[in-house]
Amino acid sequence: MILILKNGATNEQIDHVLARVESMGLQSHLSRGTYRTIIGLIGDESQLSQETLSSIPGVSQVIPVLPPFKLASREAHPESSIINVSGVQIGGGHLAMIAGPCSVEDRDRMYRIAESVCESGANLFRGGAYKPRTSPYAFQGLGEAGLEILRQVGDKFGIPVVTEVTDPRNVELVAQYADMLQVGARNMQNFVLLTEVGKSHRPVLLKRGMSATITDLLMSAEYVLSEGNPDVVLCERGIKSFDPSTRNLFDVAAVPVVQGLTHLPIIVDPSHATGRPDLIPPCALAGLAAGADGVHIEVHDCPEEAKSDGPQALLPEQYQEIAQRMRLMADLLGKTVSPRPSPTSGSSAGSGAPSGASNSNLPPKPPTEALA
Amino acid sequence: MILILKNGATNEQIDHVLARVESMGLQSHLSRGTYRTIIGLIGDESQLSQETLSSIPGVSQVIPVLPPFKLASREAHPESSIINVSGVQIGGGHLAMIAGPCSVEDRDRMYRIAESVCESGANLFRGGAYKPRTSPYAFQGLGEAGLEILRQVGDKFGIPVVTEVTDPRNVELVAQYADMLQVGARNMQNFVLLTEVGKSHRPVLLKRGMSATITDLLMSAEYVLSEGNPDVVLCERGIKSFDPSTRNLFDVAAVPVVQGLTHLPIIVDPSHATGRPDLIPPCALAGLAAGADGVHIEVHDCPEEAKSDGPQALLPEQYQEIAQRMRLMADLLGKTVSPRPSPTSGSSAGSGAPSGASNSNLPPKPPTEALA
Amino acid sequence: MILILKNGATNEQIDHVLARVESMGLQSHLSRGTYRTIIGLIGDESQLSQETLSSIPGVSQVIPVLPPFKLASREAHPESSIINVSGVQIGGGHLAMIAGPCSVEDRDRMYRIAESVCESGANLFRGGAYKPRTSPYAFQGLGEAGLEILRQVGDKFGIPVVTEVTDPRNVELVAQYADMLQVGARNMQNFVLLTEVGKSHRPVLLKRGMSATITDLLMSAEYVLSEGNPDVVLCERGIKSFDPSTRNLFDVAAVPVVQGLTHLPIIVDPSHATGRPDLIPPCALAGLAAGADGVHIEVHDCPEEAKSDGPQALLPEQYQEIAQRMRLMADLLGKTVSPRPSPTSGSSAGSGAPSGASNSNLPPKPPTEALA
Amino acid sequence: MILILKNGATNEQIDHVLARVESMGLQSHLSRGTYRTIIGLIGDESQLSQETLSSIPGVSQVIPVLPPFKLASREAHPESSIINVSGVQIGGGHLAMIAGPCSVEDRDRMYRIAESVCESGANLFRGGAYKPRTSPYAFQGLGEAGLEILRQVGDKFGIPVVTEVTDPRNVELVAQYADMLQVGARNMQNFVLLTEVGKSHRPVLLKRGMSATITDLLMSAEYVLSEGNPDVVLCERGIKSFDPSTRNLFDVAAVPVVQGLTHLPIIVDPSHATGRPDLIPPCALAGLAAGADGVHIEVHDCPEEAKSDGPQALLPEQYQEIAQRMRLMADLLGKTVSPRPSPTSGSSAGSGAPSGASNSNLPPKPPTEALA
Repeated sequence: MILILKNGATNEQIDHVLARVESMGLQSHLSRGTYRTIIGLIGDESQLSQETLSSIPGVSQVIPVLPPFKLASREAHPESSIINVSGVQIGGGHLAMIAGPCSVEDRDRMYRIAESVCESGANLFRGGAYKPRTSPYAFQGLGEAGLEILRQVGDKFGIPVVTEVTDPRNVELVAQYADMLQVGARNMQNFVLLTEVGKSHRPVLLKRGMSATITDLLMSAEYVLSEGNPDVVLCERGIKSFDPSTRNLFDVAAVPVVQGLTHLPIIVDPSHATGRPDLIPPCALAGLAAGADGVHIEVHDCPEEAKSDGPQALLPEQYQEIAQRMRLMADLLGKTVSPRPSPTSGSSAGSGAPSGASNSNLPPKPPTEALA
Repeated sequence: MILILKNGATNEQIDHVLARVESMGLQSHLSRGTYRTIIGLIGDESQLSQETLSSIPGVSQVIPVLPPFKLASREAHPESSIINVSGVQIGGGHLAMIAGPCSVEDRDRMYRIAESVCESGANLFRGGAYKPRTSPYAFQGLGEAGLEILRQVGDKFGIPVVTEVTDPRNVELVAQYADMLQVGARNMQNFVLLTEVGKSHRPVLLKRGMSATITDLLMSAEYVLSEGNPDVVLCERGIKSFDPSTRNLFDVAAVPVVQGLTHLPIIVDPSHATGRPDLIPPCALAGLAAGADGVHIEVHDCPEEAKSDGPQALLPEQYQEIAQRMRLMADLLGKTVSPRPSPTSGSSAGSGAPSGASNSNLPPKPPTEALA
Repeated sequence: MILILKNGATNEQIDHVLARVESMGLQSHLSRGTYRTIIGLIGDESQLSQETLSSIPGVSQVIPVLPPFKLASREAHPESSIINVSGVQIGGGHLAMIAGPCSVEDRDRMYRIAESVCESGANLFRGGAYKPRTSPYAFQGLGEAGLEILRQVGDKFGIPVVTEVTDPRNVELVAQYADMLQVGARNMQNFVLLTEVGKSHRPVLLKRGMSATITDLLMSAEYVLSEGNPDVVLCERGIKSFDPSTRNLFDVAAVPVVQGLTHLPIIVDPSHATGRPDLIPPCALAGLAAGADGVHIEVHDCPEEAKSDGPQALLPEQYQEIAQRMRLMADLLGKTVSPRPSPTSGSSAGSGAPSGASNSNLPPKPPTEALA
Repeated sequence: MILILKNGATNEQIDHVLARVESMGLQSHLSRGTYRTIIGLIGDESQLSQETLSSIPGVSQVIPVLPPFKLASREAHPESSIINVSGVQIGGGHLAMIAGPCSVEDRDRMYRIAESVCESGANLFRGGAYKPRTSPYAFQGLGEAGLEILRQVGDKFGIPVVTEVTDPRNVELVAQYADMLQVGARNMQNFVLLTEVGKSHRPVLLKRGMSATITDLLMSAEYVLSEGNPDVVLCERGIKSFDPSTRNLFDVAAVPVVQGLTHLPIIVDPSHATGRPDLIPPCALAGLAAGADGVHIEVHDCPEEAKSDGPQALLPEQYQEIAQRMRLMADLLGKTVSPRPSPTSGSSAGSGAPSGASNSNLPPKPPTEALA
């Protein structure tokens, strides 16, 4: 940290600051300029609070020198992490192609959609069983029944499944069914939930909050990592802006910014970022071109019947087309779409044999119809 | 709702839209303009989803006519609600003056601060026992030990206490100690938590999220109300902005905007809104002048020793001065600061006899030292 | 300035930075921390460019220590400036009460509105003759004919007039008619225009741009001051936000923030800030309570016939009521509304005898009907 | 337009609204819903003001049905426009590759940079002679001397040149030297300047303001078009955001949004959008992938010596690399980089024979050394 003192800070104040810094176990380096006195702190500042320092009388500004996240930082871990989601790799040149409806609905529809996106090359299937809705009167998801359907889809088509968890009491339950746990944008700073998913053994898809800075996002990842779960994939899904043209503002530059700061992969979600089907394909390609480690797109076969977020879903045939273009883009960029485990191996993986070292010790998933 | 169809919507599409609307139990009113066809929906639209309607082919825009919140709306409840927090009234001309440190710290310090703010005229004491911190390495609060200290303060000084709850599993526990439950800005759309506090019998202080529109805020209040808890006090505490001059941007106009839309009281929190002690007094007065039903200010007797958020706290003597000015402002505006219950009656109220009809059936609070 | 070097900056890079700094005529103070090397610059940094410094290889961050504005800064001029607008004082406890329609319209209407707002206690009359409109098809103002009407109003009612100038070629012309020149929000960074009004001898009302930080605002004031015109009044009129509840977001905290940084007065404009007549009164009072040096309110006697911005105007009788309440607020705050010069002296002042030292050497205003 | 009346609008108010609408020459369509009365307007609404309508008593909301821009709209002109800048085509599959330093500096440096970017495949050279700087103390550009150098560069290397114009009094002068006029972000709503460049015969590069919605941007383009100049190229260069990670927030989705609304081309400027050289390449590729009609990148051979904006420039060798990657991306997308006219024909084009129909009647450029 660097402390810039107030214009006119007294010698007494300066002495008090120096004494306080020393009492924190740090050395200080005093520099009196023409207009301001500056104190540089030397030593391990990881335990220092910027707030505390800026409350000391005479201190005007406190400037951190190191990022506040540690486990997530690229300085601590220079090589890009590759996250293994039941056999599908994300990061380090391996692309996630996540597709599926906003909400899990009836099983037949899920099978139809899953079959289609698998044919198009998706390698992760998504669907929400617990939906965080702004209105208490809106459809809130099928709950555990939805988780069961999702697991059946995953097992039948050999595709890992990702679903949102919203309640710390449900983390264990959701982890029994899903290959990956999503923490949604509205819960990005639900630190209680982050702590719980940090204790789980499932990889986590952490979506950026609508008003979260990139530092905020990485601090939330740090919560998960600091609980012992190293498998976090970040997701840019649009932030708040003054322009109503799009539902949110797709911050594509966040992709290289994040990649410079952390070793964790980051994917993009043009469905939520834009809220308009016509903008999903160009923004999906833009995300990949910016270096994203994957793309998350909502797909529904009849948006006007969707139980939530219909307007931001692609039709299966539209997904097929953009998926084809994404693969061409991946080729140009020298990246590969990590293949799905084969249905058979997928089923067995789904039943408890994840291949990634960091996913070990998963509880067995409950048997489902597809396994019968 | 009003549906504006796309330029060039076909007759088939129009017929399909009309059929869909009819299937939802509504009448429609077709109007073909020079450039666009418009369909007005007539009937009970409370069950309609804007998303679903905008996914119907041919539909360009869906314009809601009614606000999406119902129980919170002033149309449904024209008179301003007065919320009773263990004897202190908020709303309808009664001002809340909430003061106290960011975090509950040791008991002696809490007593000192409480004594001072009570002398200055505060009628609610605040302090966090569970702190949502952006860093997993920062002080996370004293937990239940903090709740105990807070209860002791409340009982000793006859001042109701408000504290934040962050975990749905803790709502019952916190409600046993506190007179009012705070849902913080980062949890404003933690719908799981909102549902739990909606089931509790304690009044709720609901802080606006940093990127929440006013509609979002009222929808979150609706979650609490729809679970059966009618006692919600809203709080404007600053939103995100591009200008780093202040920690957040204090949206003072939110006060009259909210008061036009809802019957629930709204207070302001200039401590979090600005993050700078020198800005707290002018913004506190501005909030009252704009019509706020109360002011929430952090107070600490040694900010550089505060365990969190020191820089945004006033010293007790600074609080005394602004409290005096707030009372003068209240006089000018024809409002009153609701008195604290007397320590004796306060203690008994604190021990299970809340005066507000809507606060009935509270579980008895656990005995504390101060009651002994 | 403080330079924070990149992690891993080489000794060669450090030497190059030190040599560059020396070549700029500054001394440097090197401090090697555990994780980063820091270089403090000592000397006159007013000619330094943050950009240039941050482009030197090895430099990670450049942190300015002094504000980039000088003439506008309170450090340079600790006492609050009082700006004299043809006899009306603004700042230092003297409040401006600016009222009038968005656009100058026909003379009879202007007379009616002016008579009313004068009776209510306004001390400056506003009206636009050159309107910056987002649409090329919208009413663009009456031009010089509007200026003439405005001057007639000023002379007849003995009230100084303020009007917007949008074209650097018109500054001299507008200055012949108006007592104060307004630079609108959209032109706040029109540096060519700022330079021209800086060369004029009329006081300037400088409105904050919709996405301007407070530093940006003060830098724009610096443009005017640095050309030799010391009479600048700043105006907070709302900034961009994600919430569509109000037209802009009224940043009331900007008032004390600005007052801490500069000696120039700052007023508020709740008409443009909110765009809603029902919000003007509470936000006007909030602005005063926060310490504003005046309030700018649009007034029109038939908003539905207004040639621009009707929805954000008060009716004359509404203005009368809020003006009365603003005077009560001023009393509470120990401030006074500077009186209008009497119509007679006003006319003479209007004809070339301004009372403020800094307004000397004004060109004589052209004779108008009202003077005949 | 659609008028939604207030809850409880009286019959008298409704009659008054209908009479007002009729007086504007429009038919109306009344629809009484359960909760609200709605009036649809039928006829030519191009002369209607949303403001005026919303000021009529009893009116709650006014909802426009048509976009407020006409000449710029794709409805009026479905085919994508191709803008010809002295032989270089932009739009309709033809990409602009604009490169050059922020400011024009000495001629030798300009020649060096121009030679390099031409070799890399740039087809437009940029450099500012009039610089809009936030500080009055910063370098303000070389003025006409800079224009002369720029023209020499253009003629010597056969590359059209684009430069910013900031003063309506200078438009003619700048148009004598430059092939394309830039209106910068801070002047996007300088309607006086827009009107002047609308009267010029040079193509215009119109940059989006930092807080401009896409509608605002298109309304500003409409100003230029409505003055008779059809040659407008739009540019996304980042908007304001709460996250300090990047200088501005690169709104890549603006590209397809704009392309859906208008026939005019849109390019991206990752230099200004991000302010960081490491982010320029990924964001340049992202812009192209999203469908941009070109990319604008600042290039300087010694950023630490640049007179402005050094930190956001690429080195010539970095530009060469990203230019190569942009060409590969263009191939994938089926687009072509419009070739520069050959130096010889370029010189003659530069001297008065522009090839695009809409660029006819240009005044001859002044002779320069390079032509001698």
